[in-house]
Amino acid sequence: MGNSEDTERAGGSRVRVRRLGIDTRQEPVIYLRSDSPVCRAEGFESQTRVEVRGEQQTIVATLNMVASEVANGTLLEPGEAGLSEVAWRRLGASSGDSVVVSHADPVSSLGYVRAKVYGHRLTDENFRAICRDIVEGRWADVHIAAFLAACGGERLNAEEVASLTRAMRDVGQTIDWGRRPVMDKHCVGGLPGNRTTPLVVSIVAANGLCIPKTSSRAITSPAGTADTMGVLTRVDLDLDEIRSVVEAHGGCFVWGGRADLSPADEILNRVERSLDLDSEGQMVASVISKKAAAGSSDVLIDIPVGQTAKVRSDKAAAALTELFEGVAGGLDMGLRVVQTDGREPVGRGIGPALEARDVLAVLRRDAEAPVDLAERSVLLAGHLLEMGGVCSVGEGASRARETLESGEAMTKFREICEAQGALREPPTAPYQVPVTASRRGVVKRIDNRRIARVAKLAGAPEDPAAGLDLHVRIGDTVEEGEPLFTIHAESQGERDYALDYLSAEEEHIFSVEEYE
Amino acid sequence: MGNSEDTERAGGSRVRVRRLGIDTRQEPVIYLRSDSPVCRAEGFESQTRVEVRGEQQTIVATLNMVASEVANGTLLEPGEAGLSEVAWRRLGASSGDSVVVSHADPVSSLGYVRAKVYGHRLTDENFRAICRDIVEGRWADVHIAAFLAACGGERLNAEEVASLTRAMRDVGQTIDWGRRPVMDKHCVGGLPGNRTTPLVVSIVAANGLCIPKTSSRAITSPAGTADTMGVLTRVDLDLDEIRSVVEAHGGCFVWGGRADLSPADEILNRVERSLDLDSEGQMVASVISKKAAAGSSDVLIDIPVGQTAKVRSDKAAAALTELFEGVAGGLDMGLRVVQTDGREPVGRGIGPALEARDVLAVLRRDAEAPVDLAERSVLLAGHLLEMGGVCSVGEGASRARETLESGEAMTKFREICEAQGALREPPTAPYQVPVTASRRGVVKRIDNRRIARVAKLAGAPEDPAAGLDLHVRIGDTVEEGEPLFTIHAESQGERDYALDYLSAEEEHIFSVEEYE
Repeated sequence: MGNSEDTERAGGSRVRVRRLGIDTRQEPVIYLRSDSPVCRAEGFESQTRVEVRGEQQTIVATLNMVASEVANGTLLEPGEAGLSEVAWRRLGASSGDSVVVSHADPVSSLGYVRAKVYGHRLTDENFRAICRDIVEGRWADVHIAAFLAACGGERLNAEEVASLTRAMRDVGQTIDWGRRPVMDKHCVGGLPGNRTTPLVVSIVAANGLCIPKTSSRAITSPAGTADTMGVLTRVDLDLDEIRSVVEAHGGCFVWGGRADLSPADEILNRVERSLDLDSEGQMVASVISKKAAAGSSDVLIDIPVGQTAKVRSDKAAAALTELFEGVAGGLDMGLRVVQTDGREPVGRGIGPALEARDVLAVLRRDAEAPVDLAERSVLLAGHLLEMGGVCSVGEGASRARETLESGEAMTKFREICEAQGALREPPTAPYQVPVTASRRGVVKRIDNRRIARVAKLAGAPEDPAAGLDLHVRIGDTVEEGEPLFTIHAESQGERDYALDYLSAEEEHIFSVEEYE
Repeated sequence: MGNSEDTERAGGSRVRVRRLGIDTRQEPVIYLRSDSPVCRAEGFESQTRVEVRGEQQTIVATLNMVASEVANGTLLEPGEAGLSEVAWRRLGASSGDSVVVSHADPVSSLGYVRAKVYGHRLTDENFRAICRDIVEGRWADVHIAAFLAACGGERLNAEEVASLTRAMRDVGQTIDWGRRPVMDKHCVGGLPGNRTTPLVVSIVAANGLCIPKTSSRAITSPAGTADTMGVLTRVDLDLDEIRSVVEAHGGCFVWGGRADLSPADEILNRVERSLDLDSEGQMVASVISKKAAAGSSDVLIDIPVGQTAKVRSDKAAAALTELFEGVAGGLDMGLRVVQTDGREPVGRGIGPALEARDVLAVLRRDAEAPVDLAERSVLLAGHLLEMGGVCSVGEGASRARETLESGEAMTKFREICEAQGALREPPTAPYQVPVTASRRGVVKRIDNRRIARVAKLAGAPEDPAAGLDLHVRIGDTVEEGEPLFTIHAESQGERDYALDYLSAEEEHIFSVEEYE
């Protein structure tokens, strides 16, 4: 006797489609009136997984029924099917096109969620099927959530994380640079203003190594590297343009979003964020799959450690380091991990333009350039120079410092930006409000998360000039009334929004303790 | 330094609400135009969890942004917020009401999902907070999915399942009958036509025991007990009506949906079905929490075992039995488990009216009444009579048979139905098509799942008279052209729909093998 589910589908029913404009993120949704003949004929109910066959494409969507008495004359006509934005895009539909809807076939890769729930090990082949179905939209968000929970904790061993990573790499585009080494760096994150990447890339490329850096825009932070570099140059290059810049200049600073590298990662990440799960296995797979897809052979990982950073203890950093190394080994990738100070923001500016200004100041060797940003960039670039064989172990940092101080890094930076299409000066914000210390004392702690929130409320990263400028660091002494930081905003409303939050939270952001 | 997330909320923004009629099941969804000032002011993006404060109620909803260029003139005006059906209901809103939207506070019970992902044990108090937040709509479907996956496999021990069960019981209404024992029964399911409950209740109540039976409507099957009894009498009684029927007659046959017993169960079940996860812990918690909320002190569990039933092996039945017993012990509930034959349907009819006809035939002692249905009901009722102390162990079945054969069960059945409001005869369907054997031989196997699907395609349970009538059982010999079963439908379309499926699937439904 065959599988009891293998042929449950009848021929399907035909309906006209209509774009409703509803953004359901990665999960395609189809809207049908409860009185539409198709619902009755197919035995659909809300949440049914529906196959939608168009002229060109076939997708799977989740059904939301629409009460006919409410829909009348507005949302949908009988015989019409509404589509959410992602469903509309994936189907490649035009208004009024006719499609065939039917029950979706059971998705066999969902069986691996059950297998993982029951503690079974998954194979390369299993992870490959999972990533393929996720990218093709065959899994609903609830399935992805169940998968992430089943894989969380320590339920994926290093071998499984490596399998998942390879599957994530292979399901999207990959880039082959036709040479080795190809350098890259990644920061585990959580530190506002920590914009070392443009500096590291400039130093490393100026030393003749290949470092084709793709970066992301901010997701939950006030600025991503792509936001900061977007202030200074054009970052939305396609793959051919990236190739030509890198071949001519050894490096680039581009947004990775156009390259379709590790598309499974984007989907998994989004669901993981809404679960507020922060699984190490998932994070490592995410980082390494993107680097591998981008063709990197040697990767430096920066783990800032601090109470309000992403990684909060040396012990956690050590466990993460071990996993990174194990997975990179399974992908034939060179990898070095460096642990850095994560107690407070790096540099002065937080927000795209303010960080861009700091980066330029360091490259130009301005007197007021933030020393911590320069030093951290030198440290990281030094490791990459050693990994890439430019100099021997122990000599990387001094070589990196020379490259920065001699102006070669600035030259390289300008060269790359111009090849990408422009080198612009960062804009400044019309509204600037200093926030001052309410008493004299010593700055004991700075809360990275709350500082980031102030910058976001002021408008970063959507408003490039918005954010804030820090005037003090941990250990500094301040007098009552002395400015701690300045809020930068492009509109009065956003300035006030940030100030409102501050009035409630100021005490928690900077801990200023009286000295004896 | 305080928790970094405790006061991230600003005051919120005011919008007018509008009912969109979209059925998103248990997850409230709010729709806002991407160009609405509130999205910018609050920093919302799609999938943000939004608090919606109305005049009476406050709810948490998931945001779907709507592209303004598509929404224009149809879906939403700027300054309007659309609400899905469940959001509309929970908020108790009227069209044009003004509400305040803001970021939802972090839901602290979601931390227990992370704890469970990391393998920690959860306490009574943890499960209580989880069930409360789920019932109040503070968890999105992805959170529930992650919770179910994290608890699946064997990740809840019997003690945790008992804690979850108590929490599920306590989060809804509970009934106290003021006496003991209060009997109940539950069948783990998977067998079409297995409509023993009306017979068991009649026999047990006729013997003076209290058995206030609440049942569900069909979810994925062609009929639930509430659907079948709904053909014969009124089943949507409220709690006061249930009480008065039970006090007068010792039993009832009502739909449990109006009583709000274990509302968390309904929500968890729905998500679990879309995951196609079938966790034992969840199933036991579901069953026992409902029985406990309904005030039952002694419960009989019927586990049909068969290749195409829900429980497929004796080993699986034994593990399930142990868990049922452990959890019932943790709730001070008497419980007995009986394992029955799950290889084929019970009785002849499948579908509300056809099953109701079988039930009446057994009660009336008609010559053509299905013997298997009568015998199984006698077996189950016998166990309950022993558990309730009506007779000693080993004598229950014969006492139950006497009650049925003497007509006392019929008298009790009529009494209860009339107290509930009516005793009607079941309707018959206008379209009846026999399906015949394509060759002579012996019936070797019957596929419970596919048979159920035929009955559903014919219109059951929405069309009460629809379904099918089986004419043969496993072991019967059939001649070519002899009827195997008859399809009953209320419309030609549905009849044809069932026949279409049959033409593809007939071979799999009945395995007729030639005899030597």
